[in-house]
Amino acid sequence: MFRALLPRETSFFDFFEHHAQVTVEGARELLALATETGPIEPRARRIKEIEHENDVITHQCVDALHRTFITPIDRHDIHRLISRMDDVIDLVDGAADRMRLYELTPIRPEVKEFAEILVQATQLVEKAVHGLRNMKGEAAIKAACIEINRLENDGDALFRRAVLALFRETNDAIFVIKWKEVFVDLEAATDRCEDVANLVEGILLEHA
Amino acid sequence: MFRALLPRETSFFDFFEHHAQVTVEGARELLALATETGPIEPRARRIKEIEHENDVITHQCVDALHRTFITPIDRHDIHRLISRMDDVIDLVDGAADRMRLYELTPIRPEVKEFAEILVQATQLVEKAVHGLRNMKGEAAIKAACIEINRLENDGDALFRRAVLALFRETNDAIFVIKWKEVFVDLEAATDRCEDVANLVEGILLEHA
Amino acid sequence: MFRALLPRETSFFDFFEHHAQVTVEGARELLALATETGPIEPRARRIKEIEHENDVITHQCVDALHRTFITPIDRHDIHRLISRMDDVIDLVDGAADRMRLYELTPIRPEVKEFAEILVQATQLVEKAVHGLRNMKGEAAIKAACIEINRLENDGDALFRRAVLALFRETNDAIFVIKWKEVFVDLEAATDRCEDVANLVEGILLEHA
Repeated sequence: MFRALLPRETSFFDFFEHHAQVTVEGARELLALATETGPIEPRARRIKEIEHENDVITHQCVDALHRTFITPIDRHDIHRLISRMDDVIDLVDGAADRMRLYELTPIRPEVKEFAEILVQATQLVEKAVHGLRNMKGEAAIKAACIEINRLENDGDALFRRAVLALFRETNDAIFVIKWKEVFVDLEAATDRCEDVANLVEGILLEHA
Repeated sequence: MFRALLPRETSFFDFFEHHAQVTVEGARELLALATETGPIEPRARRIKEIEHENDVITHQCVDALHRTFITPIDRHDIHRLISRMDDVIDLVDGAADRMRLYELTPIRPEVKEFAEILVQATQLVEKAVHGLRNMKGEAAIKAACIEINRLENDGDALFRRAVLALFRETNDAIFVIKWKEVFVDLEAATDRCEDVANLVEGILLEHA
Repeated sequence: MFRALLPRETSFFDFFEHHAQVTVEGARELLALATETGPIEPRARRIKEIEHENDVITHQCVDALHRTFITPIDRHDIHRLISRMDDVIDLVDGAADRMRLYELTPIRPEVKEFAEILVQATQLVEKAVHGLRNMKGEAAIKAACIEINRLENDGDALFRRAVLALFRETNDAIFVIKWKEVFVDLEAATDRCEDVANLVEGILLEHA
């Protein structure tokens, strides 16, 4: 009877999974933006909508946290996890916004490579947070986290390659500065995926 | 009798509140620096003094932490909170120092806008850490944290606008690099205010 | 009998100490790279090997964490500590890699100064994590952490000085951008040493 007054414990996992799904969609929009030849405005606008969508989920999650007496995993961890998850799409939006504002067309090929890494990494984040729901399949969650770490290393190497290509192709420092801002955001987005993987691994360590 | 040997528990809240007040003063100095037409050295020097003042408070707080057996909130959280709080003024000092070193006059108008955001955000941090003292007024603390989050979003948007304005006004890449360093520091200062808000929200979740 | 099934608790301290020793070696290679006049490739390659070596230690440590029922210190803290420790050599490798890729010779004098700071800071990290093993010599550990904080401040000041020197010597913005990337990595490496010191201080607070 009393328990009926409490939100269902699983709702936090619903927030994580929904948020992760929406982030994957954002990464896919970035991939489309990088692959298509038309104007980037529509895709950049869609990414901003997705970013807002995830802001709403994040706020609902934190709100639920304030109203819930017993949480399935440590409160701090829930808070940290949803916050780090939310950083990923913020940075993808930052990159898209900068390409739009600075009118950076044509889109450089490394954006597509970053988008491919991010589609994979966000899908693995989705898998990892899904695994938290029942704390089963520990090996599969760990494998996803290790793979996210590997993708983050790829992101690092890609960033260095992307910037080196800029230096080799142009002496226009302003052009370099603008594109570097885009690549910094995209590389940071892969870093935040790794942070999420590390948090999930940490939560798993507490419960497994 | 035994309790008399322990530092008063509330001292940690004294450290938080004192530190927060001094940081507000630092943000106000930045606003004065950005608004006045005279040389910026005196204001930049005052900000550095304020930064040192807060270093002392931070070290006293951490020291007290080592000497206290029972803390009113989790030890890790006290340590993290005072450290993140201390980052704000470090970054404000970084921005002022760069404007001084690079002789960046006239001060660009976005510095005033950042300073206005930072005065508001640091006042809200002051309010939030004050609220921790008795864990009352949970709604008011949460409202302060949400408002800090909103200001951080404003800081993000302002950063993009400030940099776009640079690109539109000049082809002098060195000038762009110098001013970008200042804006990066100021935007990071609003980020650290948000980190503090998130920490306060997390502490509240543990105790409310 | 049952305890024989558990990994020895002290193994985590073995991981920390081994990792810290290897990182000191990396900092020394950077110092050699900055001091010698020959080509930097061999030293940069050796730093990358060291970085891989530490990746292996980090993975072994996290793996052991998954297989251990009772840990001598909080699981989260072990995970966070080895992760932050691993960031230091990643950033040293990043700096060396960029100098190599961008063919940045001659090496600017501030690289040597950064390397000297990093040799000291990583030796202090080694000392601090060694102290964790028996939680004795609290004063000595704290002194090491305070000294690391001081070195991080030196790193900050050195970064500003290094960049100011670039602005004073050249109008070649691309040259400035390349060297700034190197200095950003080196300054971030000192920041990560400070993060490690803060974590050690936090662990000490829990156990002392």
